[in-house]
Amino acid sequence: MTSQFTLHEDPRSGNCYKIALTAAMLRLPIARRQYDIMKGETRAPEFLAKVNANGRIPVLEIVEEGAHRFLPESNAACWYLAAGSALIPTDRFDQADMLRWMFFEQYNHEPNIATLRFWLAFLGEANLTEYQREQITPKRMAGEDALRLMNEHLGQQNGNGRQWFVGNEITLADISLYAYTHVAEAGGFRLHDYPHVCSWLDRVAAQPGYAAMD
Amino acid sequence: MTSQFTLHEDPRSGNCYKIALTAAMLRLPIARRQYDIMKGETRAPEFLAKVNANGRIPVLEIVEEGAHRFLPESNAACWYLAAGSALIPTDRFDQADMLRWMFFEQYNHEPNIATLRFWLAFLGEANLTEYQREQITPKRMAGEDALRLMNEHLGQQNGNGRQWFVGNEITLADISLYAYTHVAEAGGFRLHDYPHVCSWLDRVAAQPGYAAMD
Repeated sequence: MTSQFTLHEDPRSGNCYKIALTAAMLRLPIARRQYDIMKGETRAPEFLAKVNANGRIPVLEIVEEGAHRFLPESNAACWYLAAGSALIPTDRFDQADMLRWMFFEQYNHEPNIATLRFWLAFLGEANLTEYQREQITPKRMAGEDALRLMNEHLGQQNGNGRQWFVGNEITLADISLYAYTHVAEAGGFRLHDYPHVCSWLDRVAAQPGYAAMD
Repeated sequence: MTSQFTLHEDPRSGNCYKIALTAAMLRLPIARRQYDIMKGETRAPEFLAKVNANGRIPVLEIVEEGAHRFLPESNAACWYLAAGSALIPTDRFDQADMLRWMFFEQYNHEPNIATLRFWLAFLGEANLTEYQREQITPKRMAGEDALRLMNEHLGQQNGNGRQWFVGNEITLADISLYAYTHVAEAGGFRLHDYPHVCSWLDRVAAQPGYAAMD
């Protein structure tokens, strides 16, 4: 069964980029339909009714035999695209451990590291509300905690370091964590404080099929 | 290969309960090792070194042939336990769509609905910091959004409503979302505003193997 894919995205979003990077590494052609989240285009009635009632991007649209289905949540879309590929380990523990890092990414990493990038690099600090300003320091600390945990994990394994988050090959865990980590400096994080993270970022960017963020 | 499981948990945590409920529905025996997060027991050096460097529970410990492995993140632990069972659909779209609801649970549901329960029912409103108090209203609104989205989803499908979040059988998406939804009133949410959610909660509790939260 041949599927056609459309990524509903804002190309500035790391969550959208994850899906585009997964498709690129798998050599899957994917159409891209762009929205400007700053203009509220994903809150328009047609988007809410047809693409995602949650009003969020990314959404992966999958067309098979004329039927259109819509899959929100970046990591779920990556999972769909990568099903059956080497980007998802088949070992039972490694597969669950890969998902562990993807849940970590959405819970501990994205709400801090991606949000500070959005606020500081896109909205601009001068335009933040008082409530957003108060969250800068807690999000900074939680984001540093996430980067520290990643750095320690990559530095382990008998002192030789790990090449990848799970097992011995690149998986969706690496793609998912790469998306907002490699642009974390736009949110004021200093990546050179995390040397194992920096060398892992270089390894991801050197992979066959790698595509840079727009 | 026979595995033995230990759940490192605080039994008041819905994230821990998810794993216990998954094991119960699969009739998998699981040992339980309890910590008091209010006393910082998951920040102790031994816990950080051996169980989870992230200082969080739940963690699923898996013993196979004398080797101990540790799996943090509640939804990843559920995935490990349920591998190959009917709780994970085999259809490619349904499987990704199940993960979509589990990522939604960790991103849109848990940080709002679980956090307000923890603050209001366990810490107590009088003991909250000023910063926590300021987050009550935003978290209330975001939690209501999550419940509304769930209610609308369950009410759809040709007007007859859906029995389960994905497909025609209970999956990990239901177990994951059930954990903090069924105790949401402890955080001040009024579940009777969401009738499709209420009838779905009843369906989950009527499933064979169901085990109540401690």
